[in-house]
Amino acid sequence: MKKTALIMAGGHGERFWPKSRVDMPKQFLSLTGDGKTMIQLTVERIRSLVALEDIYIATNENYRELVRQQVPGIPEENILCEPVGRNTAPCIGLGAVHIAKKYGDALMFVLPSDHLIKYTSIFCQTLADACEVAEQGDSLVTLGITPDAPETGYGYIKFNPEQAEGRAYPVERFVEKPDLETAKNYLASQEYLWNSGMFIWKVSAILDSLRRFLPDMYAGLQRIAQAIGTPEQQAALDREFRAFKSVSIDYGVMEKADNIRCLAGNFGWDDVGSWLAVSRIRKTNEYGNVVSGNVVTVGTRNSIIQGGEKLIAAVGLRDIVIVDTEDAILICDKDSAGDIKKVLENLRICNKYQYL
Amino acid sequence: MKKTALIMAGGHGERFWPKSRVDMPKQFLSLTGDGKTMIQLTVERIRSLVALEDIYIATNENYRELVRQQVPGIPEENILCEPVGRNTAPCIGLGAVHIAKKYGDALMFVLPSDHLIKYTSIFCQTLADACEVAEQGDSLVTLGITPDAPETGYGYIKFNPEQAEGRAYPVERFVEKPDLETAKNYLASQEYLWNSGMFIWKVSAILDSLRRFLPDMYAGLQRIAQAIGTPEQQAALDREFRAFKSVSIDYGVMEKADNIRCLAGNFGWDDVGSWLAVSRIRKTNEYGNVVSGNVVTVGTRNSIIQGGEKLIAAVGLRDIVIVDTEDAILICDKDSAGDIKKVLENLRICNKYQYL
Repeated sequence: MKKTALIMAGGHGERFWPKSRVDMPKQFLSLTGDGKTMIQLTVERIRSLVALEDIYIATNENYRELVRQQVPGIPEENILCEPVGRNTAPCIGLGAVHIAKKYGDALMFVLPSDHLIKYTSIFCQTLADACEVAEQGDSLVTLGITPDAPETGYGYIKFNPEQAEGRAYPVERFVEKPDLETAKNYLASQEYLWNSGMFIWKVSAILDSLRRFLPDMYAGLQRIAQAIGTPEQQAALDREFRAFKSVSIDYGVMEKADNIRCLAGNFGWDDVGSWLAVSRIRKTNEYGNVVSGNVVTVGTRNSIIQGGEKLIAAVGLRDIVIVDTEDAILICDKDSAGDIKKVLENLRICNKYQYL
Repeated sequence: MKKTALIMAGGHGERFWPKSRVDMPKQFLSLTGDGKTMIQLTVERIRSLVALEDIYIATNENYRELVRQQVPGIPEENILCEPVGRNTAPCIGLGAVHIAKKYGDALMFVLPSDHLIKYTSIFCQTLADACEVAEQGDSLVTLGITPDAPETGYGYIKFNPEQAEGRAYPVERFVEKPDLETAKNYLASQEYLWNSGMFIWKVSAILDSLRRFLPDMYAGLQRIAQAIGTPEQQAALDREFRAFKSVSIDYGVMEKADNIRCLAGNFGWDDVGSWLAVSRIRKTNEYGNVVSGNVVTVGTRNSIIQGGEKLIAAVGLRDIVIVDTEDAILICDKDSAGDIKKVLENLRICNKYQYL
């Protein structure tokens, strides 16, 4: 069966401010230090499984040009610009109707554009195995990550290890981000996986699920589908999309469906959820620091310092994140990385939009 | 008796990097936020006691132009440029021979150029009282600061509270920076004062002491004195000054002399010894921060942030000093303020002289 992919690239990446900006969010940045942006790495990673012309990128009009520049081989009509952000369910539905319009039915990978995967060949093998599962029936297949720590920042997938079907397991339920105690129990039980937000299914299967669980949205998607290739295409998209409720695929479909299978993977996945990820994905030096740019450190440990042209002198610091850009510099305690969004709120209140 | 002053302004102020640079040290900076530099404040403070033409400024050739610009009323011949830095004893000796050459004998204040004094009128009254003591005999008079904390960063003066002569007390000895336990004992005893490094004496008295305790230096100073006003002046200064040993007035004279008196003062003195002083001399906000410039803080407390044009976002910080300048930014834990000099060592090793 034809393999296609929808890469979701509409996010704002506020947690990577000040590198990530409204007009240059995380997925268009290089955070690994190898010069390739996250969306470029995402596309490159699946090239052995999916032809460029079968890769769709969901984003919004503001980022169309960035997508063109960074992923030049993608056909123009595969860049799907959402008129407004409505979370992942409408986004995935939009991708599905476009693929269905072109191919009737096909296998569809749904992939975030801003995660990192260390071991591409293991990842691709897992995707290939997932394709077999998805192709055999009408399952919605999700990739779960075998946890190696009691992470409280991820959602979890409860699976049934007794009922393996090849590499796939039936999913019992999706659970929200747990507290630490619960996460420890999950880890010990060996019956939970991290929810990576990566899916594999037949277009027909996901559309069928949308019809069942989100019928209004499904009807709107059908009207969008009918207009594809007609002069009405943009107007229909605008009208229908704005009317959609904002709903995630997890909440709208995955938590309700009973035909979900998961494959457990160990391919060095990282959701790069905050600046703290830089300590995981880049080499730390003998003092536990990750340092780049024009930086002098004295007695500084376990810190992340991304310098630019201006000399940064870091003295006696512990667990501090410093990120310099042309017009703004962030200095943040690692424990407070979640509060970076408050900086952005503050800047909005003060009308300092140039820094957003 | 004629009142004169020698203001010592040859220091490099490394502890105030990156604002303080080799070509713009601390005494030429405004750290109070009122726009006046420390040397300007020092001159202004004594204007009610000393005429501008009787104020001498000891510095070096690199800072002559800064002195001219910042203290425009000082006669050119009162700017005494040391050919090399040789600590305070030669500096004070040079001032003394210039004043002696002009006036024979006179009262001479010796003042650092980079300290702050909050209560000018109390300070001036103390200086006036010190003049009386110095004029009556041949005492070397020093101003001690009544301690209000067991500071380990200052030298102390042990005085004899039983033998008050008006406001003056005989000094028993000078002691180096103590450890905390010793400092606590000093504070409790009420027989110790902080050594402010400010002196009042007759020129004849200090020259006599230099002759007794540092005879080689005294002889060199006499040769400098003979050359003042002759074509040989600069050559003599260069030759003699380079031959001087580097010695502080405390070590070279004050710790050896037996005719020392001190006056205890409470005039809001601060030696502005490091960036931490900014929390004392400027108003802190409700979070204990002192903030200026283009700064956003979130969950940040007890920190000092001197921003410039670039936006600084400080998130979740405690007790951090941030100082931005055009080409360098310092981010320093308050407990490590003493390690700023290691940054400068590091920059020298890396040949990054442009930042010094």
